[in-house]
Amino acid sequence: MSVQRATLAAVAQEAGVSVPTVSKVVNGRTDVAPETRARVEALLVRHGYVARGAGGSQHAVRTIDLVFDALESPNNLEIIRGATEAASAEDFHVVVDVAPDDPLGAAWARRMAAARREGLILVTSEINTQQWQHFAEQRIPVVTIDPVNLPAPEVPSVGATNFNGGMAATSHLLDLGHRRIGFIEGPPQAMVAIARLHGYHAALSQRGLTSDPALMAAAGFNFEAGFGAALFLLGKEPRPTALFASNDPQAFGAIEAARTLGLRVPEDLSIVGFDDTASARWSAPPLTTVRQPFDEMGRVAMRRLLRMIAGEVLVSPRVELATELVVRKSTAQV
Amino acid sequence: MSVQRATLAAVAQEAGVSVPTVSKVVNGRTDVAPETRARVEALLVRHGYVARGAGGSQHAVRTIDLVFDALESPNNLEIIRGATEAASAEDFHVVVDVAPDDPLGAAWARRMAAARREGLILVTSEINTQQWQHFAEQRIPVVTIDPVNLPAPEVPSVGATNFNGGMAATSHLLDLGHRRIGFIEGPPQAMVAIARLHGYHAALSQRGLTSDPALMAAAGFNFEAGFGAALFLLGKEPRPTALFASNDPQAFGAIEAARTLGLRVPEDLSIVGFDDTASARWSAPPLTTVRQPFDEMGRVAMRRLLRMIAGEVLVSPRVELATELVVRKSTAQV
Repeated sequence: MSVQRATLAAVAQEAGVSVPTVSKVVNGRTDVAPETRARVEALLVRHGYVARGAGGSQHAVRTIDLVFDALESPNNLEIIRGATEAASAEDFHVVVDVAPDDPLGAAWARRMAAARREGLILVTSEINTQQWQHFAEQRIPVVTIDPVNLPAPEVPSVGATNFNGGMAATSHLLDLGHRRIGFIEGPPQAMVAIARLHGYHAALSQRGLTSDPALMAAAGFNFEAGFGAALFLLGKEPRPTALFASNDPQAFGAIEAARTLGLRVPEDLSIVGFDDTASARWSAPPLTTVRQPFDEMGRVAMRRLLRMIAGEVLVSPRVELATELVVRKSTAQV
Repeated sequence: MSVQRATLAAVAQEAGVSVPTVSKVVNGRTDVAPETRARVEALLVRHGYVARGAGGSQHAVRTIDLVFDALESPNNLEIIRGATEAASAEDFHVVVDVAPDDPLGAAWARRMAAARREGLILVTSEINTQQWQHFAEQRIPVVTIDPVNLPAPEVPSVGATNFNGGMAATSHLLDLGHRRIGFIEGPPQAMVAIARLHGYHAALSQRGLTSDPALMAAAGFNFEAGFGAALFLLGKEPRPTALFASNDPQAFGAIEAARTLGLRVPEDLSIVGFDDTASARWSAPPLTTVRQPFDEMGRVAMRRLLRMIAGEVLVSPRVELATELVVRKSTAQV
């Protein structure tokens, strides 16, 4: 009998309960009466019980790295929430970090191997073939979430249906009778921005309309860029009656541009965003936007990574989760 | 000579460089020419080099738990950013998690000890004396950030100067000539809310004014509660000319309440919030608010925890970091 089991047996006897009951307490199960739990906890402490794994193999604690290019976008928190939930369910822990500046990835992969990390989720970072190979050599599976560029086809990745979302947002405005719909583009190198742009084109074309280059403005994925692009587009004659922004911070910038011009949203101007992070519910007016299921993206990325760690080969390395139009108060009939 | 050192020497010879140069590559230093680095990296992989710590003691990877009651408030991300930055600087890794439902804390503390966690940062959770003792028994130091209730005096905690912030926000409105200043309170059991409330009282009293109970409304720390409280306060005759909300989501609710009533912010109504998370820069108009330095709170909590891990005794267990009024466009002369 191991020291561990002997301790559990002694505690069980002293507490006047069965060994399985003591095990339940040790494992944090909730189906033990509170008084029993308290008595057993106290005895475990007195007997100096140390949980399995403490002295033994490191594999008792299995750890995944969740790495961001920067911890700045509000959707990062939702991804962390989803990923840690999915990891906890399988008794994995999640180390959160920012990507090191290691273009080759070799030192990074070696440090991860040394730390016995079992897998890596990389969020909105580019991963190059060389980095990918170094992780493969260290046998560390990698899943990316919404990479800036689509990675090599063999790199597992999780994204959202950005093209469909772009179509849904534009169709919503068309359904409300809008025809002069301005479009605030995202960074031209970002795959997600390209997909949303083409969703806009597709929705117009489905109604026999063509997109007017004069109604499109390039911008970064932030408030200031959205503000500037909206001011530019709202200076056109005739003025657009609606703006579709490629992400929520751009849309908030557009709402602020409307306010400074004395235009009411949605009476004088409809605005749609893309993301649906918490701030979209808090704008004035609350923002109609395309929801990306960030927490579910974190959850799915983690579940897929855990399957890879278990030795499974993913049949489809790329998965896109459905986006959904959330209609709030920033859009109205033209 | 250890296997490790033998490998480094062999790689150095084959690459035609010195052992210190190989060490630099292994340690991720950047002062190595790119071609040299690439050659050495490739040889390290071919020689199956495994970094120190991989096979040896688990202490090569030192880990802190950063635990939230829920991963929901946008400021959580800023705390994670600050804490991981401070941890990386000392080669510690940060596991992010949500607090388990373990009112006694004994199983939780044992699991952490088993996972060889060296310390715990607990964010906006209550910690009771019993939990604290279980962590102390497992020799796991704990630092809390902005706990719901001030913990026992011996529990190290990091917060912000909420009372001063409440005074600064109210004084700003008084300086702008406002005299009927409505106050949207936070949850009555939250220490931070109580401190902000008393900052409001103090600023009024400093000018020989007394707070009018008719201008105060209790509310939860969220948008909907702020919206409802603002509608209630704006229904008073004469109407308040300014509202001070106890956190930013409440303030966004107040901006939306003003919009639905046809009141312009700041022309007809000034609004001040408290927190200054990203959304405050994105509201229409951008929100005047009291900044809590969440990333710095994460950094300071981590640094203090690392000092405790190193065996230091903190002279002052409670630290409050300075809040700062950030004036944007939601406030104006009455």
